[in-house]
Amino acid sequence: MATLVLLRHGESVWNAEGLFTGWVDVDLSAKGESEATKGGDLLLDADITPDVLHTSLLKRAIRTANIALDVADLLWIPVKRSWRLNERHYGALQGKNKAQTREEFGEEQFMTWRRSYDTPPPPIKDDDPLSQVNDLRYAELPSELIPRSECLADVVDRMLPYWYDSVVPDLAAGKTVMVAAHGNSLRALVKHLDDISDEKIVGLNIPTGIPLVYELDDDFSPLKRGGEYLDPAAAKAAIEAVKNQGAAKGGSAAKPAAKAPEPKDERKSRRGKRK
Amino acid sequence: MATLVLLRHGESVWNAEGLFTGWVDVDLSAKGESEATKGGDLLLDADITPDVLHTSLLKRAIRTANIALDVADLLWIPVKRSWRLNERHYGALQGKNKAQTREEFGEEQFMTWRRSYDTPPPPIKDDDPLSQVNDLRYAELPSELIPRSECLADVVDRMLPYWYDSVVPDLAAGKTVMVAAHGNSLRALVKHLDDISDEKIVGLNIPTGIPLVYELDDDFSPLKRGGEYLDPAAAKAAIEAVKNQGAAKGGSAAKPAAKAPEPKDERKSRRGKRK
Repeated sequence: MATLVLLRHGESVWNAEGLFTGWVDVDLSAKGESEATKGGDLLLDADITPDVLHTSLLKRAIRTANIALDVADLLWIPVKRSWRLNERHYGALQGKNKAQTREEFGEEQFMTWRRSYDTPPPPIKDDDPLSQVNDLRYAELPSELIPRSECLADVVDRMLPYWYDSVVPDLAAGKTVMVAAHGNSLRALVKHLDDISDEKIVGLNIPTGIPLVYELDDDFSPLKRGGEYLDPAAAKAAIEAVKNQGAAKGGSAAKPAAKAPEPKDERKSRRGKRK
Repeated sequence: MATLVLLRHGESVWNAEGLFTGWVDVDLSAKGESEATKGGDLLLDADITPDVLHTSLLKRAIRTANIALDVADLLWIPVKRSWRLNERHYGALQGKNKAQTREEFGEEQFMTWRRSYDTPPPPIKDDDPLSQVNDLRYAELPSELIPRSECLADVVDRMLPYWYDSVVPDLAAGKTVMVAAHGNSLRALVKHLDDISDEKIVGLNIPTGIPLVYELDDDFSPLKRGGEYLDPAAAKAAIEAVKNQGAAKGGSAAKPAAKAPEPKDERKSRRGKRK
């Protein structure tokens, strides 16, 4: 038996501003940092001690894990990172305002891009400043492996090899494994773990900052379908809130912004261009 | 040819209070966090992009690296950690006030413990609350491998296998390697790199928070002995200040404290006891 802890990163600056983020490397908001701290407190309270951490290559997941593990006095555990745990690539929508996109393309198209299992948004162009084809951190990936847009099915396909090759061996060694990642890479993993259908996964949301704990059997299947959130009441409330948001057509676009904010200080941002 | 970047952690809370720290997992002070930020700025200014990070298992080194890499937008690079990069174990002196220790044991004994190459301080007892024998993070080390006290010669002995087995392969692969560690584990490494004698290494100090960059030849020897600090003027000033401290017999013990401060919130501190 092994323990798997899933942690979705806290709110990012672009989440707060209602922009599609995807593979753009946006930092946590102050609220996101608080959520990460709470995640660490929950680990401590539950006396869960991850032996190893897996993260995506995006700072909102990395910093969420770092903050939570610092609270739990576990900054020293081994860590592995992979692009395969990255958020779904949002294609040409990256950096666009969600509310404006809904208005521009209509409710049906908007919901298809957001929620369809197998319809990706339009691809991002390689010369788009928000494309990742020249991003230093993906320098070791052949260009054909760098997504230009992804649907959830694509995320499942590229995430599973990492699950099998990197996470499962840690679990097989009896380790308590923490995976700090994103709404859609974690939905992809939960779809696999709980054997959720392509239709049903569309309705599943994973709250931010609340560790979701699975006890797995020797075949790495959950002993309890759906696992357990370390703060079930908060998780339920967060899931309900997302459902109600959808009903109110509000999305999380509180205040429309004309365009994606640029990094404030270009000097301080390599934003990963290859030299 | 490969590039090696050494980064000594910023000031810790116990540095500021003039206590011997060693393997006790003390956090950075606010000043230490600023030093780490400056370290990241210096990397950016010099356009040095580490491909991989190696750290000790102590949070003052880990957090220094995390802060510096966050500034440089490089939080995503792979990281490896090892106890072999830890600070020198200060034995029974851990947690003791430096000024009081000097008064209690006399200048000569004090300086021998601090600066002798091959005389370790008295060993810490295994039931001392500041011992590491029950520390979760060393659970995979056989007890005989956990230091009870170390001189610099001991640090060289236990650090070198990590250099050869983990750091050198990254350098051999052409990577720019960053090592975030401690005054004495980095002195041990510099002793090896620059082939400094047992006598001469005693007088060498490495400033905190200023990246020290070595270009290495194909045999992993420095092209330039001593490497180059990214802020040579600040490094020189810091080295002079340490020398003058020694001359004034002041140490860094600004205010004597009766005993080592305990962690403020026990609940929040596993401080790594095995379950």
